[in-house]
Amino acid sequence: MSVAMLSDLLTEVLIPVAAVVGIFFSLLQWHFVSKVKLSPERQTRGAHDHGKNGYSDRLIEEEGINDHNVVVKCAEIQSAISEGATSFLFTEYKYVGIFMVVFAILIFLFLGSVEGFSTKSQPCTYSKDRTCKPALANAIFSTLSFLLGAVTSIVSGFLGMKIATYANARTTLEARKGVGKAFIAAFRSGAVMGFLLAANGLLVLYIAINIFKLYYGDDWEGLFEAITGYGLGGSSMALFGRVGGGIYTKAADVGADLVGKVERNIPEDDPRNPAVIADNVGDNVGDIAGMGSDLFGSYAESSCAALVVASISSFGINHELTAMLYPLLISSMGIIVCLVTTLFATDFFEIKAVKEIEPALKRQLTISTALMTVGIAIVSFIALPSSFTIFNFGAQKAVKNWELFFCVAIGLWAGLVIGFVTEYYTSNAYSPVQDVADSCKTGAATNVIFGLALGYKSVIIPIFAIAVSIFVSFSFAAMYGIAVAALGMLSTIATGLAIDAYGPISDNAGGIAEMAGMSHGIRERTDALDAAGNTTAAIGKGFAIGSAALVSLALFGAFVSRAAISTVDVLTPKVFIGLIIGAMLPYWFSAMTMKSVGSAALKMVQEVRRQFNSIPGLMEGSAKPDYATCVKISTDASIKEMIPPGALVMLTPLVVGTFFGVETLSGVLAGSLVSGVQIAISASNTGGAWDNAKKYIEAGASDQARVLGPKGSDAHKAAVIGDTIGDPLKDTSGPSLNILIKLMAVESLVFAPFFATHGGLLFKIFWNGK
Amino acid sequence: MSVAMLSDLLTEVLIPVAAVVGIFFSLLQWHFVSKVKLSPERQTRGAHDHGKNGYSDRLIEEEGINDHNVVVKCAEIQSAISEGATSFLFTEYKYVGIFMVVFAILIFLFLGSVEGFSTKSQPCTYSKDRTCKPALANAIFSTLSFLLGAVTSIVSGFLGMKIATYANARTTLEARKGVGKAFIAAFRSGAVMGFLLAANGLLVLYIAINIFKLYYGDDWEGLFEAITGYGLGGSSMALFGRVGGGIYTKAADVGADLVGKVERNIPEDDPRNPAVIADNVGDNVGDIAGMGSDLFGSYAESSCAALVVASISSFGINHELTAMLYPLLISSMGIIVCLVTTLFATDFFEIKAVKEIEPALKRQLTISTALMTVGIAIVSFIALPSSFTIFNFGAQKAVKNWELFFCVAIGLWAGLVIGFVTEYYTSNAYSPVQDVADSCKTGAATNVIFGLALGYKSVIIPIFAIAVSIFVSFSFAAMYGIAVAALGMLSTIATGLAIDAYGPISDNAGGIAEMAGMSHGIRERTDALDAAGNTTAAIGKGFAIGSAALVSLALFGAFVSRAAISTVDVLTPKVFIGLIIGAMLPYWFSAMTMKSVGSAALKMVQEVRRQFNSIPGLMEGSAKPDYATCVKISTDASIKEMIPPGALVMLTPLVVGTFFGVETLSGVLAGSLVSGVQIAISASNTGGAWDNAKKYIEAGASDQARVLGPKGSDAHKAAVIGDTIGDPLKDTSGPSLNILIKLMAVESLVFAPFFATHGGLLFKIFWNGK
Repeated sequence: MSVAMLSDLLTEVLIPVAAVVGIFFSLLQWHFVSKVKLSPERQTRGAHDHGKNGYSDRLIEEEGINDHNVVVKCAEIQSAISEGATSFLFTEYKYVGIFMVVFAILIFLFLGSVEGFSTKSQPCTYSKDRTCKPALANAIFSTLSFLLGAVTSIVSGFLGMKIATYANARTTLEARKGVGKAFIAAFRSGAVMGFLLAANGLLVLYIAINIFKLYYGDDWEGLFEAITGYGLGGSSMALFGRVGGGIYTKAADVGADLVGKVERNIPEDDPRNPAVIADNVGDNVGDIAGMGSDLFGSYAESSCAALVVASISSFGINHELTAMLYPLLISSMGIIVCLVTTLFATDFFEIKAVKEIEPALKRQLTISTALMTVGIAIVSFIALPSSFTIFNFGAQKAVKNWELFFCVAIGLWAGLVIGFVTEYYTSNAYSPVQDVADSCKTGAATNVIFGLALGYKSVIIPIFAIAVSIFVSFSFAAMYGIAVAALGMLSTIATGLAIDAYGPISDNAGGIAEMAGMSHGIRERTDALDAAGNTTAAIGKGFAIGSAALVSLALFGAFVSRAAISTVDVLTPKVFIGLIIGAMLPYWFSAMTMKSVGSAALKMVQEVRRQFNSIPGLMEGSAKPDYATCVKISTDASIKEMIPPGALVMLTPLVVGTFFGVETLSGVLAGSLVSGVQIAISASNTGGAWDNAKKYIEAGASDQARVLGPKGSDAHKAAVIGDTIGDPLKDTSGPSLNILIKLMAVESLVFAPFFATHGGLLFKIFWNGK
Repeated sequence: MSVAMLSDLLTEVLIPVAAVVGIFFSLLQWHFVSKVKLSPERQTRGAHDHGKNGYSDRLIEEEGINDHNVVVKCAEIQSAISEGATSFLFTEYKYVGIFMVVFAILIFLFLGSVEGFSTKSQPCTYSKDRTCKPALANAIFSTLSFLLGAVTSIVSGFLGMKIATYANARTTLEARKGVGKAFIAAFRSGAVMGFLLAANGLLVLYIAINIFKLYYGDDWEGLFEAITGYGLGGSSMALFGRVGGGIYTKAADVGADLVGKVERNIPEDDPRNPAVIADNVGDNVGDIAGMGSDLFGSYAESSCAALVVASISSFGINHELTAMLYPLLISSMGIIVCLVTTLFATDFFEIKAVKEIEPALKRQLTISTALMTVGIAIVSFIALPSSFTIFNFGAQKAVKNWELFFCVAIGLWAGLVIGFVTEYYTSNAYSPVQDVADSCKTGAATNVIFGLALGYKSVIIPIFAIAVSIFVSFSFAAMYGIAVAALGMLSTIATGLAIDAYGPISDNAGGIAEMAGMSHGIRERTDALDAAGNTTAAIGKGFAIGSAALVSLALFGAFVSRAAISTVDVLTPKVFIGLIIGAMLPYWFSAMTMKSVGSAALKMVQEVRRQFNSIPGLMEGSAKPDYATCVKISTDASIKEMIPPGALVMLTPLVVGTFFGVETLSGVLAGSLVSGVQIAISASNTGGAWDNAKKYIEAGASDQARVLGPKGSDAHKAAVIGDTIGDPLKDTSGPSLNILIKLMAVESLVFAPFFATHGGLLFKIFWNGK
């Protein structure tokens, strides 16, 4: 076997350097955003640097740049949103913190009990001739890395929220100067979050590996087993973030819309609506913090899955550090590639008109994918030996470095395909959404039927893309191939998150413009940003789901290896019942989350109605609504309601593994994976399509749209109903399913040694382990 | 090994006797129904036999029994519905006939090519030391049994439709005499269909086996392989019946409702609505003919799956005829048990009030299940040797007769559990539907969200019931156990179909009452019958889905055995991509069927609107609408639109098997099974719940309902929207999915020898069969 070109020392330097560059770039973007001042007295400075990017000739000063009132109002609203979001997240973290501690203890007890808390070293699981650290060490370090992952995930989500609430009002103010300016402000803020998350995730993982190595030394098998806790920590926080945040945002949104838009006929984000602040807070805690935690979780898990397989392949056995850290090198390269890609949006091109927004965002995807393909090639050729072996369910499979290049690249390109298909089905520039809009002519029922059909149809190509990636990467490099394919899809995560976070920021910016009473022209610009944001949000969800599918398959493979089962045969009853019950879990989970949104929204509706009926002068705008009560309703409901679905996901692997054993658990994982991915894609695209069908009618930009519109027409009302139904689908139940899939897989992986030793109690008792 | 108590000769006699008894009983029920005369001159004879069942004291003669006008009108409407249904079915059969011929040729060519159309005998696949008939014989007889199954299925559906259209107006007329009378008329008609189908299916299968045996002699392996074509024929016709009928009925229903109820504010089934006849025709071609073909298909397939496994178990190897025909004996016993059960509804008890209808129907399920448990025990003890062996993927597994009893019984009881859970989630007597109705307070959006959540939730218990059945029956008797569990669930098919067919007959009866201008009191009675019918229809769909899941697993097992693969390992990429793509197929299929309903409904809406706008005096009732054009629109649309989903289902196994091979095909089958069953259950329950939530508000039978109502209130309008969305879910896409699951499995089974010999071309070419 040959050796990698890149020396181990250089690897050890390059990874942290890339992470630090990413963090620095992120701070630089923040610096640019912060130049837009929210304190009116120094407002002129914000307008100071137009010339630099050549926008000064495009300023349309509809409100005076120095209009103190508007700026003060925006600042006020922003601080209300930011306070609401911070207070919710802290409340959430309080509960999640308790869970974290309890679960950390569980991990320690379960894994410690594998060898009866013995402190003696033992023969390794795979290389029987070597000595590995005791199971107790695995318990301790898994617990530690679980906590590390959880904290990193929380910090990622929290920072994302802070940045978004920092940026929203600034985007609004920039919209006064033109759509290009506003776009840059929103996009830069998204980039802050994207780079911070990607770099942070990489750096923490890198440091953890190096610290753990101080204890583990040459026992890489044990080291990387313990590291999988990092993925579990990341994903379990993501679960609560997505579910809690998702319920929060949609309870507020649905509640606000049902009374405001449908009953009272006032516009979206009207400051008279008592739920409007809660709605805007929701965008930040759900779509930003939740999404941030989710993608961080995917990233952490795919890295962990790749590392744990690599540790028992030739890389790990021969202690080839550079090749071992190939996943981290890919991520490092990803940060650099995304950095260059970002410059295309912020510096190389400029947005001059509304219709250029979507292409600009799409171009980000294409450019980053093209550049990253080269990047992967470089990393694969310098960081890998020309040939090596990969662990494949008990055997070692010979693999060449160019084969691994294809694995990563196919994941990357599958992501692009999923992104484009998602765009096709959710953007109102194409016929699917236009057909849905058209079906509003005959009312809400046909709109819903067409929307559901659209979502179902949108599943087809992404599934084929995922299937091809799986087949190719598995054929080349077994489960390691799949793990790095997932990593490939996530390698451009910084760009993905940037365009994704851009959406809710624009949405909030529009809300602030409305609430601050800014002119129709400003609102039109923010609406255009927002419509593009709906599409990018759907694309982001597509990536999240696609990568979740690959990640969980990789984790599943790693679990099977660790649980020491050689086949998962569908034709055994233990596996088959797991499969069918696993396929049912996403439905159970969705039922819970959707019902939660429904009930919370009902409470919100009652409160909003109460305020409209009991606060005199509210409809006339002479009295202020009580925003705080609505924020409290959303907070309480989401905290309360996130527990049952959270418990379902966290307990299922434990219960199944302990009582039914690893075969049934394998079935459950496979079943929930293949079924969940379909519901997740269709739910998120259906919701996105309804939202944009409504926006299509509202914008009235084509003959067809003008016939259907204007706002308030019967067709528009039907479209609003679709949009409202889509809210929990696309922002609560759909995206939470990624986490269900991934989390059950990574949890099974972490607990695998326990299940393999003590699991399957029920069969042991009743059928003598038959 | 011991021998069965029942002699082979007696078995050969008992089976046809049971079938003939069933047919006779069915004709007797028809005779009773036919006593209600539709020709006014002899109307008095219809009212003649009240005394017999003790109803005479309950007659409320709101319209004179001898009111000639009403009777003439009913007869007219009935004949319009019957003509429409007959004409549609004949058009459908024309197209389906072409398909049948083409597919028969395909079967012959594919199977004939396995051994190059050689007429030489060959060693058997499983008992290598024996000589079996040539593959060409298998090709010929499989083709024959395919045609036989197809024709039987068509006849079943057609007869069902004829009976239903014969009974609907008679039920309306009986409603004048009281709810009990009307119930008996509808129920008896349902029983005609139930018994005719069950007995017919059994008899044809029995005759086919005996005729084929003349050629096959001792080669039971070949004989029962060829018989599997019977299942394929039955199910492929069912596919077109369900899909074509489903599109027909829902295009008409949705179209009629959207203009009539929503826009014009006229009641359901108002004769002024031009789509009203098409709507009533639809109930008969979709819910009756389609459902009949579907359940016949399930019955045929589960029998075939059991027989094919038995033929390579000790029963077949030792030529134990009685034990071999155990599945047919179970069905024979089922006919007798259902016969007794029916008497409980028609003779032992009587319905005195509306609220007794649902319990009476439910009692049918409980009684038949309880009696059948005893029946299964008897058959298992007299027809089976006390111990024997069952083929289990290459090995022979020792099984005892009481173990087989448990297999059949657990399937039967799982069916009851599914039935009761379905009732709980779709009847408006319980909180789930009431909650959905309540959510209409805040509009259509929350109604849809709650309804979808209800459907998702309703999946949980049925899936556990199916999983437990699979586990137990598989543990006891491998794939044979699962096949007989499915048969157990279907053993009370006559009763199941009776209460199921009762639904659309009552629905039609209500429609006829409305169209004939009968009084509000009559309509209230038929509405009550109909509301119970929605629930039994949902229960029927629950049975259809549950049994489809078991049947397709059994078929899948038989396919795997015949394709000579020993494991279906999820961890091989070939299987996994099959699994994920298979799980996607139900979405693709649903997208097609829902979009079809949507487009067809749009066309219908335009036609109905056109008629209302262009025919003067239509709204005032002074002019007649043009019913025929609406019937034609539904017919054309459904014929055209059933082709793509039909092609998807029929071609997938052929394409996957031929190009990707049996492993990938196994994955596809498992994936579509575990994913499709969930969507099917949730779609059908969501739709049923919405329908009954609407009826709950309309009936205003509780305080809660009165607050939400009356008809025309905002909450009621929201409920109507939900009902309309539910239509394609519960009557088109949902129930068609059963067939997708079963059909792909049985098709794979029939073509297995071909795929095993010539399949997997793509892998052979590109990867050298790797």
